[in-house]
Amino acid sequence: MLAVAVDEARAGLAEGGIPIGAALFGRDGTLLGRGHNRRVQDGDASTHAETAAFRAAGRRRSYRDTIMVTTLSPCWYCSGLVRQFGIGRVVVGEARTFHGGHDWLAEHGVEITLLDDPECVALMTDFIAERPELWFEDIGQD
Amino acid sequence: MLAVAVDEARAGLAEGGIPIGAALFGRDGTLLGRGHNRRVQDGDASTHAETAAFRAAGRRRSYRDTIMVTTLSPCWYCSGLVRQFGIGRVVVGEARTFHGGHDWLAEHGVEITLLDDPECVALMTDFIAERPELWFEDIGQD
Repeated sequence: MLAVAVDEARAGLAEGGIPIGAALFGRDGTLLGRGHNRRVQDGDASTHAETAAFRAAGRRRSYRDTIMVTTLSPCWYCSGLVRQFGIGRVVVGEARTFHGGHDWLAEHGVEITLLDDPECVALMTDFIAERPELWFEDIGQD
Repeated sequence: MLAVAVDEARAGLAEGGIPIGAALFGRDGTLLGRGHNRRVQDGDASTHAETAAFRAAGRRRSYRDTIMVTTLSPCWYCSGLVRQFGIGRVVVGEARTFHGGHDWLAEHGVEITLLDDPECVALMTDFIAERPELWFEDIGQD
């Protein structure tokens, strides 16, 4: 499932954007939605990878049995999304380059799988080194 | 400033949507962006009033001096947005019909003003009575 999120991150990078991707799956592995950060592409500060995947999945009555897979630890915005909509499980590609709200989610009953995937780490390490100002803009750090 | 958010909520209601509106202002009162929930209108589960106003404000380097005004206490998703991007102040129309994350935001240094505005209360009270299934969908309650 991480491969879909990584594909999204790479697609974002190829578009000149921030290389973070995500996908929402059903418990049976059905892909419900996928997407990537679109700050640069659309001038849209509100579209993080997780919110893009969530939007792409359309309207749903319940998220209890869904799995959000993301290349990077979800920021507070995306962690809030997971908590509010009761997404049952989050698979995190890595939390080495950015530590978001996944511990908070675990405290609130969300099943967290942290992979520490080398490809995800490399994508963000290279990106932050090349475009630090864009990265800090994306996480709202002055 | 609340009048702009209420206008947005009423516009959403007139479109057949969920009557929650928000606006982002600068410290000097300049309107930066405004919007309303678009779940029904666009089939978009990711566009809450606050995220719509945030998106409409475009890309910004800092949110420290901005004020998010919303007709209703921000849910975890929208509270996460405020925390991640360091929005300095949130004005909440009411928290009587829904109590979101504004206490959590206050604990994390966000200046919160809770108005308990009768018009905001009436908008949501009437809406929840008329369309409970839509309301519970919007806050991810099974």
